[in-house]
Amino acid sequence: MNNKKIKVGIVGANGYAGAEVLRLISAHPNTELVAVTSRAHLGKRVSDVFPALPCSLVFTDMSDKALKSCDVVFTALPQTAGAGLVGELIDAGVRVVDLSADYRFDDVAVYERVYNVTHPRPDLNAISVYGLCEVNRDSIRAAKLVANPGCYVTSVLLPMLPLCRNDLASDIIADSKSGVSGAGRKSDEAYSFCTLDENFKAYGVFNHRHAPEMSEKLGTNILFTPHLLPIKRGILSTVYFTVKDADEALNTLKSAYGGEPFVSYSDALPEISFVAHTNRCMFSARFDGNRGIIVSVIDNLLKGAAGQAVQNMNIMFGLNETAGLPLYAPI
Amino acid sequence: MNNKKIKVGIVGANGYAGAEVLRLISAHPNTELVAVTSRAHLGKRVSDVFPALPCSLVFTDMSDKALKSCDVVFTALPQTAGAGLVGELIDAGVRVVDLSADYRFDDVAVYERVYNVTHPRPDLNAISVYGLCEVNRDSIRAAKLVANPGCYVTSVLLPMLPLCRNDLASDIIADSKSGVSGAGRKSDEAYSFCTLDENFKAYGVFNHRHAPEMSEKLGTNILFTPHLLPIKRGILSTVYFTVKDADEALNTLKSAYGGEPFVSYSDALPEISFVAHTNRCMFSARFDGNRGIIVSVIDNLLKGAAGQAVQNMNIMFGLNETAGLPLYAPI
Amino acid sequence: MNNKKIKVGIVGANGYAGAEVLRLISAHPNTELVAVTSRAHLGKRVSDVFPALPCSLVFTDMSDKALKSCDVVFTALPQTAGAGLVGELIDAGVRVVDLSADYRFDDVAVYERVYNVTHPRPDLNAISVYGLCEVNRDSIRAAKLVANPGCYVTSVLLPMLPLCRNDLASDIIADSKSGVSGAGRKSDEAYSFCTLDENFKAYGVFNHRHAPEMSEKLGTNILFTPHLLPIKRGILSTVYFTVKDADEALNTLKSAYGGEPFVSYSDALPEISFVAHTNRCMFSARFDGNRGIIVSVIDNLLKGAAGQAVQNMNIMFGLNETAGLPLYAPI
Amino acid sequence: MNNKKIKVGIVGANGYAGAEVLRLISAHPNTELVAVTSRAHLGKRVSDVFPALPCSLVFTDMSDKALKSCDVVFTALPQTAGAGLVGELIDAGVRVVDLSADYRFDDVAVYERVYNVTHPRPDLNAISVYGLCEVNRDSIRAAKLVANPGCYVTSVLLPMLPLCRNDLASDIIADSKSGVSGAGRKSDEAYSFCTLDENFKAYGVFNHRHAPEMSEKLGTNILFTPHLLPIKRGILSTVYFTVKDADEALNTLKSAYGGEPFVSYSDALPEISFVAHTNRCMFSARFDGNRGIIVSVIDNLLKGAAGQAVQNMNIMFGLNETAGLPLYAPI
Repeated sequence: MNNKKIKVGIVGANGYAGAEVLRLISAHPNTELVAVTSRAHLGKRVSDVFPALPCSLVFTDMSDKALKSCDVVFTALPQTAGAGLVGELIDAGVRVVDLSADYRFDDVAVYERVYNVTHPRPDLNAISVYGLCEVNRDSIRAAKLVANPGCYVTSVLLPMLPLCRNDLASDIIADSKSGVSGAGRKSDEAYSFCTLDENFKAYGVFNHRHAPEMSEKLGTNILFTPHLLPIKRGILSTVYFTVKDADEALNTLKSAYGGEPFVSYSDALPEISFVAHTNRCMFSARFDGNRGIIVSVIDNLLKGAAGQAVQNMNIMFGLNETAGLPLYAPI
Repeated sequence: MNNKKIKVGIVGANGYAGAEVLRLISAHPNTELVAVTSRAHLGKRVSDVFPALPCSLVFTDMSDKALKSCDVVFTALPQTAGAGLVGELIDAGVRVVDLSADYRFDDVAVYERVYNVTHPRPDLNAISVYGLCEVNRDSIRAAKLVANPGCYVTSVLLPMLPLCRNDLASDIIADSKSGVSGAGRKSDEAYSFCTLDENFKAYGVFNHRHAPEMSEKLGTNILFTPHLLPIKRGILSTVYFTVKDADEALNTLKSAYGGEPFVSYSDALPEISFVAHTNRCMFSARFDGNRGIIVSVIDNLLKGAAGQAVQNMNIMFGLNETAGLPLYAPI
Repeated sequence: MNNKKIKVGIVGANGYAGAEVLRLISAHPNTELVAVTSRAHLGKRVSDVFPALPCSLVFTDMSDKALKSCDVVFTALPQTAGAGLVGELIDAGVRVVDLSADYRFDDVAVYERVYNVTHPRPDLNAISVYGLCEVNRDSIRAAKLVANPGCYVTSVLLPMLPLCRNDLASDIIADSKSGVSGAGRKSDEAYSFCTLDENFKAYGVFNHRHAPEMSEKLGTNILFTPHLLPIKRGILSTVYFTVKDADEALNTLKSAYGGEPFVSYSDALPEISFVAHTNRCMFSARFDGNRGIIVSVIDNLLKGAAGQAVQNMNIMFGLNETAGLPLYAPI
Repeated sequence: MNNKKIKVGIVGANGYAGAEVLRLISAHPNTELVAVTSRAHLGKRVSDVFPALPCSLVFTDMSDKALKSCDVVFTALPQTAGAGLVGELIDAGVRVVDLSADYRFDDVAVYERVYNVTHPRPDLNAISVYGLCEVNRDSIRAAKLVANPGCYVTSVLLPMLPLCRNDLASDIIADSKSGVSGAGRKSDEAYSFCTLDENFKAYGVFNHRHAPEMSEKLGTNILFTPHLLPIKRGILSTVYFTVKDADEALNTLKSAYGGEPFVSYSDALPEISFVAHTNRCMFSARFDGNRGIIVSVIDNLLKGAAGQAVQNMNIMFGLNETAGLPLYAPI
């Protein structure tokens, strides 16, 4: 790590994930923000659109040539919308952390079925690295293109991968609950304060798009039900499974992320407030006979999106992996 | 009061105030709901649109002839939109409780300036009665057309009218805070959960439309600032004023609503939770020299809108004034 | 049903469930509240303790002789604390609806193990009726002592009993989420606003006391995990199970509560806001192969406690079963 | 600024303000945390008490000798409780930022009357500097003892001092609304989730202890009413006043904090979400004739407490004033 600042671009900074990348990068000690795009806010000063972000840059759009002068660009666009640009950036030697689902799947056919699209760049998919930092760190280091994992997916994979890779868990059901920011910036009565405050609901039963992403990475089909919490940020996943050997499972979970700053086993059941506004994942397990239950928490916008994206950047550029990433949760 | 049920129509039942009238009338012991209109939901069953309201009626629109067979119709439409219908209903002998601002002002010119419209029916305005129940009960009893007061206005007038009518208060500033339902049903990012949760803001500084309504009824110009609370329902108004005689003012406030079921002086400072989900208004006063402060609370959708509208109906038809109106606040 | 008012007593009206019974009975058209007890507030006027409940009665304690002149007494006390009184009331010919867990279990030994107590009155347990209204209506009608079901339990039993009684579901996991009022009135940092707002957590994993109650009534062991939602009221249970015949299961669920005013199958996934502040239970089911998922919602203080208690009273005294019980949910 | 880390101690880290200092210092690039005390948690590891703060230090108590080896100690104790220790630290050459009210008043007699205590160390009061950073920066630089301002006070002084010092405002009323963390860590039903959620109330009418602090610093008596918002953090103050010259007042406000990173005039009305989780203060003004209204927002735990305390430390030790302090508000 030297003192030269990494030049960063952010594409799609109007959405919550993009805006959160912007917030993190603005305060990051090793980066210089050189371009930030939003079609909706083209030509406006960031701080005029987002008074909470005192940044004097002006929003450009995807044609902004400065993007190609960046060391890394974060793309936070809807499915397939960023494909052309990602290709151009990679061709120009710019490394990319993509926050969409475009490059997350090993099996392009699954992606196409789940998202009901034709994959825009199967060739790029072939070189992309799945950016689950603690699991794929070595591949991320050298990656040209990192596919940032889904938020629900991150909360489930981090505790379950060590179990599944050791064939310790089966019949997995993930009952997950997310804060509202997970749905993105919305002008829709369904996401209005009066609809969601003091409310709670399930959605996407049997058909949420994060289920196939989890299943592919775990190597086994899992049943996943998301719910909407009346909070701004945070995910808690309660994962039920049949355990082969409870003691071995517990040991595996406790040792899986030994020295990791952001991921840790907790003896106490973790709550969303333990990790909200941080890049951490905490999880705990309980066993009764052959039944296992894991409770896992993350901040959906940080470890579940923008935070993990910045962590990926830190890894890609040999920075301190915790640089610019919050570890301590506020009250 | 006899056993014959009052036939009721509701026009504009999609908005929060209209839907709340629908909820109250559905559970009212002395009414029969015969027509409920919503242009947006024309032809749909109420319970299919609002699963929270298990009502098997089908939404019609303003042309529904059944409206003219009603004893009373509640009109809950945007400014001027209901004027034609209100006229027809009155002509047909149907009594009307109007929840818009159309008929609230004594001075039509003030209404036209504040709402930036031409008054559609100044003739109806001349016969309308301002439906502040405890204050205008006798006129309401015989009224053909009742203009239901504004929500903020109700919270301020109930404590301040007794003072102003006795010339006990001057230099009045009302700093009011309202739950989000006061803004109506909205598909707008400004009213999204993520925008408003854990947030609070002032708006309409020096130019909110409820200020002239308060000023006209109090007979003195008052300064009014509304704020948006991250709660679904309820208004708390903190009213500052110069008091001429604190003892007399306190006595006036304590005795003003002696036997009233819904309006009462409270020795303790009232909180929104004391009256949320009820038709009550509670207020308390504190004095220090010639400075007076009143804290007043209501539920904006009940005493501030639908509840007062039903109370007006109860008065108009000689029913028990508390019929169908909640008095006891839930936890 | 005649016009004579049922004389009602409430023991333990300081807790949320007891206070909610007090609120419902105060507004009930067929009852007269004659005694309300709270050791903590002995001698104080109800409305002085609870400004939200404008009731002029004075709190007495369990020795209040007026309790024995009641037609029915609601007892809402901690486990075993009400046993002596319940016995005396039953002996005096007063019918009792008990909101504790004391008389809920068929098997006294299970109760004693789960609550870690000696059952104070196994003889009364033998004559008590489990007050799940829609399921046990006939027995409730004649009951001297009704054991009001647990809140989580009600949300799970109503949809699952029809399936389990027809042997259509197995391997049941109930992942339930409750509003904070379910924990009762608390002076404890763990239930403070700053601890729970914007937070969410699991608790009681593998050892919550409602699991054995569910298991006994369903006739099969179920796995149950409760969670704490940052809302005041409402429960949503997501129930996972293996289904024997999905079509038959769906038909069974749709027809199970045909004419019931409070319990209904919903095609759309029900949300807590559909039933909050009402006595309703709504549920919906989804199937995928041999996997079934049911989403069920109630208001924990109404259908999950005080509302069902009053419904039990309505049944016991031949009143209209919906009398005094809210059907329509507010915004 | 060199690379040597400032040695920091925190006394009273169990309270919200102290815990927030701990959080900030843990992530501060120029400090080394050497001692953290809490009588309640003596001997426990910080992260075992606060899972949200992954810090391996062990709580000591006020007798911890390491405190005297610090460069600076933050004392966050109840009134008068820290006086003995503060004196010892100052004598030992340790600089102190005190978050209590002990050293905030110029006039000791006012302090003694307001807090109903005898001032423990009037001699230290005489050398303390009032730590309103942007206003007293030069004195803070050399201060041995900095008295960190009250939260409400900071929100009012920052916009009003420039006006009052130029005699531009009179008849000041501050109607302030605070998040619940302002009340500190509480085990009290009055601060429980069920009491405060969906609620709002005024308190301390005519007698809150921050009013005399504001009045002393502004040099004029002001009327102040605090209210409790159902949010975790943030203060919004709506300040009413008579303005002598609106144009001059507006110019004064716009130019008062020109180059400041944390304090700024905003053309749009600022909302709490613009500054929550940051160390900023934003304010805006509106005028109508001789009436002026200012809306001012801060995060009560940051600019209103721990953030300003750390900013004071930064100034005292010649660090970058923004070091370790968040500028960008999250969604």
